[in-house]
Amino acid sequence: MSKLKNDTLIRALLREPTPYTPIWLMRQAGRYLPEYNQARARAGSFLALCKNPDLATEVTLQPLARYPLDAAIVFSDILTIPDAMGLGLYFADGEGPKFERPLRAEWEIRDLTAPDPTAHLRYVLDTVSQVRRALAGSVPLIGFAGSPFTLACYMIEGQGSSDFATVKNMLYQRPDLLHHILSVNAVAVTAYLNAQIEAGAQAVMVFDTWGGMLSHAAFHEFSLSYTARVIAGLKREHEGARVPNIVFTKGGGGWLESIAATGCDAVGLDWTVDIGEARARIGARAALQGNLDPAVLLSSPAAIQREAGAILERYGLGNGHVFNLGHGISQLTPPENVSALIETVRGLSGSYH
Amino acid sequence: MSKLKNDTLIRALLREPTPYTPIWLMRQAGRYLPEYNQARARAGSFLALCKNPDLATEVTLQPLARYPLDAAIVFSDILTIPDAMGLGLYFADGEGPKFERPLRAEWEIRDLTAPDPTAHLRYVLDTVSQVRRALAGSVPLIGFAGSPFTLACYMIEGQGSSDFATVKNMLYQRPDLLHHILSVNAVAVTAYLNAQIEAGAQAVMVFDTWGGMLSHAAFHEFSLSYTARVIAGLKREHEGARVPNIVFTKGGGGWLESIAATGCDAVGLDWTVDIGEARARIGARAALQGNLDPAVLLSSPAAIQREAGAILERYGLGNGHVFNLGHGISQLTPPENVSALIETVRGLSGSYH
Repeated sequence: MSKLKNDTLIRALLREPTPYTPIWLMRQAGRYLPEYNQARARAGSFLALCKNPDLATEVTLQPLARYPLDAAIVFSDILTIPDAMGLGLYFADGEGPKFERPLRAEWEIRDLTAPDPTAHLRYVLDTVSQVRRALAGSVPLIGFAGSPFTLACYMIEGQGSSDFATVKNMLYQRPDLLHHILSVNAVAVTAYLNAQIEAGAQAVMVFDTWGGMLSHAAFHEFSLSYTARVIAGLKREHEGARVPNIVFTKGGGGWLESIAATGCDAVGLDWTVDIGEARARIGARAALQGNLDPAVLLSSPAAIQREAGAILERYGLGNGHVFNLGHGISQLTPPENVSALIETVRGLSGSYH
Repeated sequence: MSKLKNDTLIRALLREPTPYTPIWLMRQAGRYLPEYNQARARAGSFLALCKNPDLATEVTLQPLARYPLDAAIVFSDILTIPDAMGLGLYFADGEGPKFERPLRAEWEIRDLTAPDPTAHLRYVLDTVSQVRRALAGSVPLIGFAGSPFTLACYMIEGQGSSDFATVKNMLYQRPDLLHHILSVNAVAVTAYLNAQIEAGAQAVMVFDTWGGMLSHAAFHEFSLSYTARVIAGLKREHEGARVPNIVFTKGGGGWLESIAATGCDAVGLDWTVDIGEARARIGARAALQGNLDPAVLLSSPAAIQREAGAILERYGLGNGHVFNLGHGISQLTPPENVSALIETVRGLSGSYH
């Protein structure tokens, strides 16, 4: 595989010197781009797009054709693992993800096994390989997975929820069952991310979308401890190159120290945290990724410059910062505002390095 | 007015010694109680119930007839102020609150004025007086209002939202307009809470339901600074009795120090914060109220005992804790689980005092 021409992201995640602050955007290949919507229409559905390596490669590369981003992230969904476990992922029109066969009976939970990614998630690994070849070393490719707890939320609830009452009911009444699911998920996520690394992913990220709705104690017991198992099991090097990892818990601003203590290379921040305070709390234990409010991208170039500039200033001098949003980009984002953001970060960040 | 027989809540909010940890529950008069649903059916609608002092008094007292709670909270809605401003509050069937005339044009925003609570919110003040008389000093009565920012969210968006994109767009593009709305709201909330105190409320609470969706900087500029104006303008004493106040920001766990720095008597905690850590951070600057995950009340008496006991233990020895949920009680809560919670807190908390 070709050597990286732009390794700014990798170096920033490893807290090594970089000439500027690298930037990529969560969900950067997505519905705010007209070319994405065309590809999705051709695929027929979001899930068909995910499962077709040619089309998934095409949409992964779309934002890089438009913008000078410092990374690609493989186009996929966090719920590919439970789908590969046989739960039957589908997307009803205009709604979020659902499962045909959510975990209900105790025997279904006891029967759960981690899928072999090289067999059941081949399409993701094929996409990773194809994107990696297409990038030809221009920028690194990020692989990702949902956290064991976030996967469990959908596997138990069967769909998204405002309060995940079914999940919480299991957590408080049958913690043994939830722990069993989480143990299987941790094995599955670890194997899946390692397979993505072997297929060509040069950094990996764990998305803990729902850990932030837990109590302090429950977050540590049911979410973070399993994310920590994943981090402990990840390959840190592949073909002579370091492969850094990132853990992002939305709503996890109160727990940055314990997230960093998993040994991850970088901690993702949502937009509610002051990145300067986060840096002071984390110290040299991890790099930080974030943390612009995605709503800023719906406003104006002037506001984008002001808000992005404030984040760079709050982080301050030195390395270890990857600029990103605090959550996925909104589908309502005008594409030209993404240009304004990248220009701002590229233009202003050099003086901090 | 009669002197308080049970002043445990007031004393705990003022960090004075109490024989046990007082308890009340956010939204304790609500849909989980069959007698509430009957009263609401008689009223015809939620809003008709709020606006009828006789019925509002009846439902305020319902949970106190069932449970040995340490406080009543006046039955009302956080959106009574914008309704009194002429925005036309209504509730569509099975949906959240909406306004017929949300703030859209700049002239509408410039025309906004704080309503005189003794004229336009008379029904709330009448309810406060009636409840106070009916309680006859058994337990204190809490008055409340939405925070200036939370009111603005609904006034601008016209209804609830998952991201309040319209509000954030104004925040980033026209901060001058948002500041104007918030200034008017701060005056209105202060006058409204002071009128509730004069009508008989013995403690008051500010609900900042949506401040937690803001960035760190925006929270301080657009939410907390206006809540601080309210706190600074509140009567602290009425008819010789101290009237403590409470500020609750859902998702505000990262900002407890600055919330306490408003000078409020107590800080409300959602369930994501460890109450022991919160106490260490806040020190002697404020009492704490919270912080059981409302989902625990959907489980079993055994889980309730374990989780409520853990909160009492984490808070530890000493005064200044008011037990509560970390958010409003779920309508799916079995009423007998509320009994289990109150018994647990009453039974276990004495040993910490």
